[in-house]
Amino acid sequence: MGPGVGEFRLKILVISPITGVSDSTLALRRKHLVQIASPETQVEVVKLKNGPASIESSLDEYYAAPELLARVMEAEKQGYDAVVDHCFGDPALHAARECVRIPVVGAGEASMMVASLLGHSFSVLTVLKETVPNVKRLARSIGMEDRLASVRYIGIPVLHLDENIQATRRAFIDTARKAIEEDDADVICPGCAALSAWASEWGEELGVPVVDPGGVAFKMAEALVKLQLTHSAKSYPRPPIKRRTLPLVAPST
Amino acid sequence: MGPGVGEFRLKILVISPITGVSDSTLALRRKHLVQIASPETQVEVVKLKNGPASIESSLDEYYAAPELLARVMEAEKQGYDAVVDHCFGDPALHAARECVRIPVVGAGEASMMVASLLGHSFSVLTVLKETVPNVKRLARSIGMEDRLASVRYIGIPVLHLDENIQATRRAFIDTARKAIEEDDADVICPGCAALSAWASEWGEELGVPVVDPGGVAFKMAEALVKLQLTHSAKSYPRPPIKRRTLPLVAPST
Amino acid sequence: MGPGVGEFRLKILVISPITGVSDSTLALRRKHLVQIASPETQVEVVKLKNGPASIESSLDEYYAAPELLARVMEAEKQGYDAVVDHCFGDPALHAARECVRIPVVGAGEASMMVASLLGHSFSVLTVLKETVPNVKRLARSIGMEDRLASVRYIGIPVLHLDENIQATRRAFIDTARKAIEEDDADVICPGCAALSAWASEWGEELGVPVVDPGGVAFKMAEALVKLQLTHSAKSYPRPPIKRRTLPLVAPST
Amino acid sequence: MGPGVGEFRLKILVISPITGVSDSTLALRRKHLVQIASPETQVEVVKLKNGPASIESSLDEYYAAPELLARVMEAEKQGYDAVVDHCFGDPALHAARECVRIPVVGAGEASMMVASLLGHSFSVLTVLKETVPNVKRLARSIGMEDRLASVRYIGIPVLHLDENIQATRRAFIDTARKAIEEDDADVICPGCAALSAWASEWGEELGVPVVDPGGVAFKMAEALVKLQLTHSAKSYPRPPIKRRTLPLVAPST
Amino acid sequence: MGPGVGEFRLKILVISPITGVSDSTLALRRKHLVQIASPETQVEVVKLKNGPASIESSLDEYYAAPELLARVMEAEKQGYDAVVDHCFGDPALHAARECVRIPVVGAGEASMMVASLLGHSFSVLTVLKETVPNVKRLARSIGMEDRLASVRYIGIPVLHLDENIQATRRAFIDTARKAIEEDDADVICPGCAALSAWASEWGEELGVPVVDPGGVAFKMAEALVKLQLTHSAKSYPRPPIKRRTLPLVAPST
Amino acid sequence: MGPGVGEFRLKILVISPITGVSDSTLALRRKHLVQIASPETQVEVVKLKNGPASIESSLDEYYAAPELLARVMEAEKQGYDAVVDHCFGDPALHAARECVRIPVVGAGEASMMVASLLGHSFSVLTVLKETVPNVKRLARSIGMEDRLASVRYIGIPVLHLDENIQATRRAFIDTARKAIEEDDADVICPGCAALSAWASEWGEELGVPVVDPGGVAFKMAEALVKLQLTHSAKSYPRPPIKRRTLPLVAPST
Repeated sequence: MGPGVGEFRLKILVISPITGVSDSTLALRRKHLVQIASPETQVEVVKLKNGPASIESSLDEYYAAPELLARVMEAEKQGYDAVVDHCFGDPALHAARECVRIPVVGAGEASMMVASLLGHSFSVLTVLKETVPNVKRLARSIGMEDRLASVRYIGIPVLHLDENIQATRRAFIDTARKAIEEDDADVICPGCAALSAWASEWGEELGVPVVDPGGVAFKMAEALVKLQLTHSAKSYPRPPIKRRTLPLVAPST
Repeated sequence: MGPGVGEFRLKILVISPITGVSDSTLALRRKHLVQIASPETQVEVVKLKNGPASIESSLDEYYAAPELLARVMEAEKQGYDAVVDHCFGDPALHAARECVRIPVVGAGEASMMVASLLGHSFSVLTVLKETVPNVKRLARSIGMEDRLASVRYIGIPVLHLDENIQATRRAFIDTARKAIEEDDADVICPGCAALSAWASEWGEELGVPVVDPGGVAFKMAEALVKLQLTHSAKSYPRPPIKRRTLPLVAPST
Repeated sequence: MGPGVGEFRLKILVISPITGVSDSTLALRRKHLVQIASPETQVEVVKLKNGPASIESSLDEYYAAPELLARVMEAEKQGYDAVVDHCFGDPALHAARECVRIPVVGAGEASMMVASLLGHSFSVLTVLKETVPNVKRLARSIGMEDRLASVRYIGIPVLHLDENIQATRRAFIDTARKAIEEDDADVICPGCAALSAWASEWGEELGVPVVDPGGVAFKMAEALVKLQLTHSAKSYPRPPIKRRTLPLVAPST
Repeated sequence: MGPGVGEFRLKILVISPITGVSDSTLALRRKHLVQIASPETQVEVVKLKNGPASIESSLDEYYAAPELLARVMEAEKQGYDAVVDHCFGDPALHAARECVRIPVVGAGEASMMVASLLGHSFSVLTVLKETVPNVKRLARSIGMEDRLASVRYIGIPVLHLDENIQATRRAFIDTARKAIEEDDADVICPGCAALSAWASEWGEELGVPVVDPGGVAFKMAEALVKLQLTHSAKSYPRPPIKRRTLPLVAPST
Repeated sequence: MGPGVGEFRLKILVISPITGVSDSTLALRRKHLVQIASPETQVEVVKLKNGPASIESSLDEYYAAPELLARVMEAEKQGYDAVVDHCFGDPALHAARECVRIPVVGAGEASMMVASLLGHSFSVLTVLKETVPNVKRLARSIGMEDRLASVRYIGIPVLHLDENIQATRRAFIDTARKAIEEDDADVICPGCAALSAWASEWGEELGVPVVDPGGVAFKMAEALVKLQLTHSAKSYPRPPIKRRTLPLVAPST
Repeated sequence: MGPGVGEFRLKILVISPITGVSDSTLALRRKHLVQIASPETQVEVVKLKNGPASIESSLDEYYAAPELLARVMEAEKQGYDAVVDHCFGDPALHAARECVRIPVVGAGEASMMVASLLGHSFSVLTVLKETVPNVKRLARSIGMEDRLASVRYIGIPVLHLDENIQATRRAFIDTARKAIEEDDADVICPGCAALSAWASEWGEELGVPVVDPGGVAFKMAEALVKLQLTHSAKSYPRPPIKRRTLPLVAPST
């Protein structure tokens, strides 16, 4: 029902900045994004060859950055109209914006902005106890701390979320109910882009909006392209030209 | 090039909550929105029969509300998927959300949220000195005051903005330059949805993003529909059933 | 014991911006205000002929506005020295201030300001679960969110509050105790001007100040008149002259 | 025209917490307060025997405290209904509230609260360059920093303000104009209670409200008494009983 | 192993601004500070002759101020390099800074700043229910309110804290656990400098940092001296020369 | 004059997370830090072998991270007591804290915390126009935005700062004067650790504190070690064990 090959007017690259996601999962994510995409938008979903298996710490974000940044720069050269940083942690988001003039949208920032349009306050449901502080830090860094009712975790690592989706659903619904009742959240943000595809279904079950993190970032990217908007060159000046190298051997924790 | 009649999957109603806009201007606005819309979205643009000629005060918002609210409720019954409150003042936005379950997006709130994604701080360029306080109040009420570099005005009433578009452009560009240089704004928000169609052109001239207020609200509405998201019923509960009447004769200032 | 007819030096109009309040209740409210008024102040208490039966939603505020604004403008012409917007939701408060140069004081804003003078943080006890979000929004919009310990509700609609005042008292005291103990509130604000007359009695029972919303707004109005102060014409410029109409038939939810 | 001796129902003690004010000036202040007082309020205005000549530093506040606190406690025993801390610096305000259960209102806090009701933001015009930081600190400590457009100074020490009132007026008006135009203040707060009597006159000249600091504190005190409100015992618990002594010889700077 | 007499290069005076602490306790405090001091730093610990037995209210701070300020000024004349205001309430801190040009560091402010470096949010464990509001006020006044997870109290008066240190430890650990689990604190600040010596031991037991209030203030003072830094003369201008006296008889509560 | 080899009790590693600094400059930095260090502290100063020549963008921080993180982990194993992240941008600071249990202190965060102790507000003087947004973002992310009077730049790249130190001094002093006079800054923070050695000299010239960024971070690290404090394991949990790789070829801008 969409346009044939070559008819797309928008090309958006969605980068899952991790290595541990399977190709079949990527394909499902692409399918989900195609469903919500405009018919004129071509959706490409890729993962990293080198980086962290998943992002569950600030350390992981620094492993994700090198290839992620290379891919973003490449995407601009290849004619993509926008890039989605498909991770709630928004890894290397500001650096990416410095490097290209096409819009780069992060799932965390976009989720929190849209959540704040849908209700007075929102809770983020992150994956692990260990990832709670990073979500709090992200909310503070974008000035959304006052909107944050709470950060709770469901206790399932990123790469296990879709192993048993019913168990994930139960953990998510139970935790969300606590956020709604005990923390007075009006909106729920899944704190992991891997949960994107279930957001609207679980929102129906909960009776409050559940913001699809990958989806809102994708639709925001699409909107910016159509509106011919991108991040301010004043906030994101191009990095000065200089010598930059990376070590051949990475730090091992 | 878009779908034929009956093929649209999304129907969005854009309400200009004033009476003084001409039909030809409305047609131009619709044209602009169609250009940025997804091919599957049907765009309807209407104005009020009764209300203020334009919105340039808090008083005007109360005149806009009755018919605006009636139209929003009617739109839901008619099967529209979302409504855009096409005015930067977001008149009656919260009341509208209480009355319907389809998304209602205001140009002011959507502009400021998107502006905050594009740069560290933004300035709003409103029409008149008299409308400056309302913009400041709106920014505070949605928690965006810390992002607001300044509110400046271009000195042209709403209904005269497109009378001499070159004069408007000059006033806008000059005022925006002051906001960028003196107030350190990274992004510019035109504080009037009537300026939507020129935003991207003027942004190119200024070298910083100029956020199309009607456009971002429209694309946000489209995105919410595709994501099956709407405002939280917890933040916007349905108003209790009760007797409500309006006086037959309106207050005259 | 006060001055005779014609001896009053101050004339304050208290507008209950609803239609559903009985004349006997209005008389009791007037009696309460006369008790706290300066002997030189003449107190007039009126309700609306057209508007919402009571205010329990943002929608209700837009029904209240037209006649409320007309009455405020009329009051200025009739020589009233100040107007009290006798509802915690402060309906149409900013619009009212644009239209007249006599002080207009809202019960919500005045309550929260005075509460913040009496203790570190305060809780608002509103009537219904449905009115909680509007109170939160009001607090944010006047920059009082950081002072707000919590918003709780007593579960009795506005027009039923004085039906069984002992039941209302019990619900209020129980809810207030939770706000004090669980949310660490130092001061309690009844979130409905209909509770004004019982505030000091219930405060004694609770051991913390309970701010009489109608009373503080009234005394603030009196104070502003004596101090020859009114709202800033810079923040509340007179609305531009223009054509404004209201529909003859109101929206029905 | 007011009540005769013995007819007053309210007794308010106004303490100018300095030693350097002349008796004639005190008499003028009392006259000003009597003019704005309710006819049923008895106004007493006193100064300190021991303390600072005037308050122009944080150090001065600590000199003011011992006798000020003694006077406040004495006032409660003597049956006063409220006390006004007649200095914009609010010296020893929180300690005073701990010691008594009658309301104690400070000119600084009351001014800023009322200013925030009258416009979007306010500027404080303090006496000296040296007193600017204390005003900023006070505003932050009561959560009013976001409302503060600026703090400016007129360059005249407290005890010289009424020496040449025309020179003071000129300095005040000029400085206020800068605050209004350059800092976008909507309301002006004189940062010294010694300027109370001229506030409304200068406000008329400036076209924006000028908040009489002593006056608003006095009217707030009167209002609290009539409303049977006082500061929360939870925020201001009575100090534990213990041994406390003061040195016989004070520190000399 | 430290320098011999006369070899010290830094001299820091630690003032416990109360009278009720025993000489043996003071000696223990000095011992603790010597342990954490640089070998080149000479540590002097003194208490007041006149003042409050302990600081557990805002009133107490005003009793502490006169001799404390005299001692600070004397310390500068005697060649001390810095002064520590060894009380979490930071009594007379700003006044002290106005009077001298050597650094004056308060235990409360230094604790909260360092706590904010060590984790996302912190709780303060104060001594009594009555001292809770003063801690909240202090946090707000230095802009640290957003970092404050909670203020809890252990229920033991200052002068009884080291009477039965095991009972104090138990109360502290239990209360800290609640702050960590229920209020989500990442760091614990004992709200009384008398607990300084046990902070690191209890921190080990709790598994989160416990900030030694006297210690961080002392190390901050030492750091400022070595860095040749002191408070800004712009924020802390020298108080104008004027007549200042104290009453011979202090207020008695 | 300090202890002989083997007598040091504290070992602090200072990492300049760039490659472009010369060995002679590093030696000077070490000399400066030794001067302010405690005699018992051993100071090691190193730079990166692979990373950015200097840090002047968010991109640069991601190049600095891999070797910086490896060095921090190595330092812990080698028995260092603390690490200083010797760059105002605090690159990879949170990731570093996740990886080790010894304190890691960043020059930016430490500078802003100490600056806030020394005055009401501070300005950061960064190197280039391009680095202004990153400083603003850093201040917001640590909740210091309200203390930030302004961010200004001196217009000299990091690696040219000590080429002509008199030209740098002039640019710094001129820019600082504007921050003090036009932006009302009370304290100045050089926004680059390369300026550490001149801070106290320039502060004397300016008459307000100039915070030595490397120095305060170093002294804070020393203080934390002596106080046996480190970052909270609750805020900085150890990253989950997982596969993490880096690409062999870095992105090229």
